[in-house]
Parts: sequence; C-alpha cells; structure tokens
Amino acid sequence: MSLTSKKAKVRSPRVRAQEPRPVDLDVLPTLLGFNIRRAQIALWRDFAHSVGEGEIRPGAFSLMLLVSANPGIAQIDIANQLGVDKATVVALIDRLESEGWMSRTRSSEDRRRQNIRLTPEGTKVYKMLRKQMIEHERKFVERFTPQELRTLISLLKRLHG
Amino acid sequence: MSLTSKKAKVRSPRVRAQEPRPVDLDVLPTLLGFNIRRAQIALWRDFAHSVGEGEIRPGAFSLMLLVSANPGIAQIDIANQLGVDKATVVALIDRLESEGWMSRTRSSEDRRRQNIRLTPEGTKVYKMLRKQMIEHERKFVERFTPQELRTLISLLKRLHG
Repeated sequence: MSLTSKKAKVRSPRVRAQEPRPVDLDVLPTLLGFNIRRAQIALWRDFAHSVGEGEIRPGAFSLMLLVSANPGIAQIDIANQLGVDKATVVALIDRLESEGWMSRTRSSEDRRRQNIRLTPEGTKVYKMLRKQMIEHERKFVERFTPQELRTLISLLKRLHG
Repeated sequence: MSLTSKKAKVRSPRVRAQEPRPVDLDVLPTLLGFNIRRAQIALWRDFAHSVGEGEIRPGAFSLMLLVSANPGIAQIDIANQLGVDKATVVALIDRLESEGWMSRTRSSEDRRRQNIRLTPEGTKVYKMLRKQMIEHERKFVERFTPQELRTLISLLKRLHG
C-alpha cells in the first residue's frame, strides 16, 4: 500500500509533464498590441497558404494592386499609400521586376521620376493572385456580420489613419 | 504671348510631378487584411521607438512576460500561447539567453523538458520594458472609449481565436 502510493507520487509528475500545463497570461490577452499581432499572424499564415503558393507576400500583392489600378505610378506614391518607406518599395519592385512582372520607365515629364507598370505577364499573375486573395479575405470576413466588419475596419483605421 | 503660354505648358508637368498625385486605392481600404497589416505596422513602429530603444521586438517582450509570469515554463507552452512555432521560440530564447536575461535548465521531473526562467538581470530589464510597453500601449488605447476598446479586442480575437 505505502509502496504503491509512493510509486504513484514518483510517477505523477512525469505524467503531468506531458500534459499542457495551465499558463498565466498576465495582461497579454488584454493588450491591443498583442491582439493585433496575433490577428496579423493568423491572416499572414492563411495568406501564405492561399495566395501565390507562399511565393508572394501581402506587401507585394498590395503593391501589384496599386500599380494595376494606377499604371505609371511613382515609387514615392506607392510608399506613401502603403505606409512603408521608399527603400522597402524599391526593393520590392526590384524583385517583381526580376520576375518579369513589373517595368520601370523614366518619366518623359520628369527625369527624376520612374513610372512603374505591370508587364503583360505581371497583369496575368496579378489577376490570378487577386482571385486567390479575395477567397482568402472571405474566410475571415465571414466571421463577422456586415455591421461588425464596418466597425472593425473603422476602429482599425483609427490605429493607422 | 504665344511664347509665354508655350513655356507655361512645358513647365507645368514638371511642377505637377512634384505634387502628390491622386492615387486610386481600388479595394485596398476595404480589405480586412490590409487594415490589420497597416495597424500592425503603426503599432510596431511606435513599439520600436518606445520600448527597449529598438533592441527588443514585440515577440521577445511577450516571451519575457510569459516567462516572468510562469517561471520554469516549457518552450512548447510558450510557442502555443504566442501562436508561433517552436523553432521561433527556441531562436528567441537563444538570443535572450546570450544577452544573459534568460536561463534554460533541464527539468528534474522530465529530462526532455527545459525550464525557462528570467535571470535577475533579465527580471530587471523586463520590469523596465514593461513600464515602457504600458506607455506605448496607452498612446493607442486612448484613441478609443472603453466600450470601443472592448469591441475591438473581441472582434480581433475572432480572427486569431
């Protein structure tokens, strides 16, 4: 009897070690920063699975969207609209140009300006990515009523607007 | 007269080129993914300026918070709570261990398990970072009423929960 109970005592921590232990999350779940980051990670992961077979990042997609909607747009206008610095945009366009999806041409109006355009191949790729992106977006959007979605987006804009 | 108007015509595109041009944003402002990413970038930038002088990332801070609240926590439990993979956690702990802020000790209960703890130096650093993080968080939280903040966090949890 006493041996059994001693054995049980010795074994029990080993068994417990394999079960998930309760974790004290402190203030983490109440932090805006933590919740935004977790949401961003969840969206990012699904985007990577769903759009461009993991070969395209959300920032590159947004850039292609802007260039598609504004043929000949300048790099600085892209940077301003995406809220990233110009060096990031230049590096992204370098990559997309080397894929053969984008072209830079010197502006005839202003020699310091480069006009960014999608190539015909880039336009084809963009159309496919856009369809995949809309499917990806739908998976998250359908968790909300239209009113909730409007509220969420308007509150998010207050963080980055 | 005709020379002047010709000159004006030639100069006008150059002047316009330096002003911001209207940009068609297409569906971008209505996308959940785009708005989450922009919010995340805004928070990230302020965090980098406000917490640990740009030397600490939000993920490393969250990790220190979890270890502080759960001395001896296992790496896998950290990964589960932060929603990142174990390799990411291992790399983060490697860095924090090399700073002298964290220690790994083999569990006496389960030899496969490593217990993660803050060192006394790590505890001091964490307390300072936590104060800075709360200041950083406040700058964003004060843009909302308490009710709006509860709504925002509960809608965000639906994205990552």
